[in-house]
Amino acid sequence: MNPTTLTLKELAHAYRNKTLSPVEVTETYLQKLEVGSTYLKLLSNRALARAKYAEQLFNQSIDSSLLQGIPIALKDLLDTKGDITTSGSKVLAERKAAREDANLVQMLDKAGAVFLGKTNMTELAFSGIGMNPHYGTPGCALDKTRIPGGSSSGSAVAVAEGLACAAIGSDTGGSVRIPASFNGLVGLKTTNGQISTEGCVPLSTTLDTLCPIAKTVEDAWILYSAMTQKPFEKLEPPSHKLNFLIPTTLVFNEIDEEVATAFEDTCKRLEKQGHQLTRKAVPEFQIIFDLYAQYGSFASHESLALYEDMLEGRGDEVDPRVGKRILMLKGRLSTDYLKLVYTQKRLIKQFWQTYKRYDAILCPTVPILPPTIKALEDDVAYFKTNNLVLRNTSLFNFLAGPSLSVPCRTTNEDLSVGLMISAQPNREKWVLELASSIQNS
Amino acid sequence: MNPTTLTLKELAHAYRNKTLSPVEVTETYLQKLEVGSTYLKLLSNRALARAKYAEQLFNQSIDSSLLQGIPIALKDLLDTKGDITTSGSKVLAERKAAREDANLVQMLDKAGAVFLGKTNMTELAFSGIGMNPHYGTPGCALDKTRIPGGSSSGSAVAVAEGLACAAIGSDTGGSVRIPASFNGLVGLKTTNGQISTEGCVPLSTTLDTLCPIAKTVEDAWILYSAMTQKPFEKLEPPSHKLNFLIPTTLVFNEIDEEVATAFEDTCKRLEKQGHQLTRKAVPEFQIIFDLYAQYGSFASHESLALYEDMLEGRGDEVDPRVGKRILMLKGRLSTDYLKLVYTQKRLIKQFWQTYKRYDAILCPTVPILPPTIKALEDDVAYFKTNNLVLRNTSLFNFLAGPSLSVPCRTTNEDLSVGLMISAQPNREKWVLELASSIQNS
Repeated sequence: MNPTTLTLKELAHAYRNKTLSPVEVTETYLQKLEVGSTYLKLLSNRALARAKYAEQLFNQSIDSSLLQGIPIALKDLLDTKGDITTSGSKVLAERKAAREDANLVQMLDKAGAVFLGKTNMTELAFSGIGMNPHYGTPGCALDKTRIPGGSSSGSAVAVAEGLACAAIGSDTGGSVRIPASFNGLVGLKTTNGQISTEGCVPLSTTLDTLCPIAKTVEDAWILYSAMTQKPFEKLEPPSHKLNFLIPTTLVFNEIDEEVATAFEDTCKRLEKQGHQLTRKAVPEFQIIFDLYAQYGSFASHESLALYEDMLEGRGDEVDPRVGKRILMLKGRLSTDYLKLVYTQKRLIKQFWQTYKRYDAILCPTVPILPPTIKALEDDVAYFKTNNLVLRNTSLFNFLAGPSLSVPCRTTNEDLSVGLMISAQPNREKWVLELASSIQNS
Repeated sequence: MNPTTLTLKELAHAYRNKTLSPVEVTETYLQKLEVGSTYLKLLSNRALARAKYAEQLFNQSIDSSLLQGIPIALKDLLDTKGDITTSGSKVLAERKAAREDANLVQMLDKAGAVFLGKTNMTELAFSGIGMNPHYGTPGCALDKTRIPGGSSSGSAVAVAEGLACAAIGSDTGGSVRIPASFNGLVGLKTTNGQISTEGCVPLSTTLDTLCPIAKTVEDAWILYSAMTQKPFEKLEPPSHKLNFLIPTTLVFNEIDEEVATAFEDTCKRLEKQGHQLTRKAVPEFQIIFDLYAQYGSFASHESLALYEDMLEGRGDEVDPRVGKRILMLKGRLSTDYLKLVYTQKRLIKQFWQTYKRYDAILCPTVPILPPTIKALEDDVAYFKTNNLVLRNTSLFNFLAGPSLSVPCRTTNEDLSVGLMISAQPNREKWVLELASSIQNS
């Protein structure tokens, strides 16, 4: 049995069966890993030490968490003690090593997770494509000539290629859901502000969220439970008939035929099972983009404040597709930013009140299949594609609640299509239960 | 016995002794009240209905909170259902009536508090003086020719003059502590973000805090416990020797002799009791003012975003000492605002880490005695005085923790001087215990 093909749940089970041990599993993973466009850095010594400790605990029948001894990958914007956090940037790679683990890393470490290494990403997490001119672009796991999606490119590719059992990414506009969708994985954007981002390189202090990427819905739930320090409970997929909202505003524009087909097939399946699907306009979606057009986006205002000095000094060493976009918002007023903040607060409340009769909102995670890396060497194609891949996902960053991408079909070309399930803030468990119910139906 | 002279604790005791009843006490208060420069609106019907209900509960031996049947005043920036919240403004007085009680009002209502009315304030809470050109200025309770301090002018004067047993104010730069200091009361600025400001007219969404104003430290504690929905516990003043920090940076500049004497007498008393007082420079205080000078203050950025449209349209109907100051920051960049936000976050953490060896920080709440209202008709004197009265208090709004003003001496002229006790976030109980210990020593 190759342990790197197992899900988190299967691995946790094998540890408790004694059919596998954390040390042998970690060693098997480490033998497969190298520094490149997927992993920017390996944490081999730390991983082995932690695996040995987990093994001791199992031998003493101490079982503190389902994460005990599970090898996972960390997006390289989370601090790990003694390592330089690059956030995909060459300039940040010259900083000092982190003096402490990020808050979330500390938490997962306590739960017994084994950190294999730090994964590649779009520089500063500022794009949904996943290309990185400094460290290379990991190809999509399902077709290496295509983009992996970003910004958590390395985290998703590592999990999809059996180079980590699960991974932590971050999602500010879609950075976990887009690569999850492209690589056939489950990615859960968590509720804004729910998981502390202390010790992470920020992009948008309002919208940054730390998120699990996993092979299955159950794996995402196990990892999410540990990330929120909640005792693990079983998912209980609902058995009653559900009422889903399918927005007709914006989210189907410019959609690829294969994506539309996969999505509609899923809808048909749900309707056959007796669930109610309500297709209607959601005018708030256009309002959100109008707000961003009027006031600038959270990520633009906040990343400018965070990186203006760096970009003024060493902007030529930063991916121009990142740096130039950040500097574009120079000169915007604080009233623009604050009006955006205050309007968002009102709109979040009003939105979830308006649509509270629905169990969840369904739409395609990304309206297109991943284009080739080559096609996006052209700037016009790159920015057009970037806007398109971020469009659906970013709506739910603004709306603050959990938003999950789960594979709903592989296409004829063996690429994957993601179904996005979104709900109001703090309903992560519910969203995972719905995904589990839809997937198993 | 005149029930309006009793403290909250005494009144609560009298209710349980059956020597007084909520209805008779409320009626006694209401007979004394009129709409004017202290109360902008009376809530007589609501108060009587609530007093009757409290009385029924006592008669049924239902005793849910020490606040049951206690008549309190609300600063007129908290929504009460069916009433127009003015925030001291004539323009806002034309809005629709509030559809719901503010979050905090709901909470106090559940605890059984009786709301006598809504009290006057500086327009939009944007000054520490307490003058209001639209609704009049309530004179300081200890000398009616002098300013009451603001912005919670009416709340403090009402409590000091026996027109409410206690009151709710708000504090963004000193708006509860300054009038508490001038009127011989206890005012507690609560930890930033601890008590929801939902349903309140905002001034600074970062710094606004809702706060108790009371006759005694114990009364403030009873009210604060209800405001945070915590079960009432006894204060336990520490019996061991304490280590206080007395900053020498800024807070004693331009101090009135009477204030200096009252403060130094308190220090001598504390030293005699064996407590350690460390006088040293606190360079962070200057850094805070430098940050505000460089980037603009939270209140300026945030109030501009909140009221820009109103001020552009009807600015001539707004107190020019408020409206013009708000408009002064027009054109500031979002990067200024965000750099202020990010620096504050770092500085709060670093500050309380640096001074963690001290039990609390002591300084005069306000460096001067309240000037006459007449003297501040002059704009130059007004703004100079406003900066001076807000200087010490506003430092602890930036630093986020609880900060309490407690009377430490009345001067020869029978004016009061406030001692300010400040500590790190969420240490409200500790600050009140220290105040109780200092007051009783």
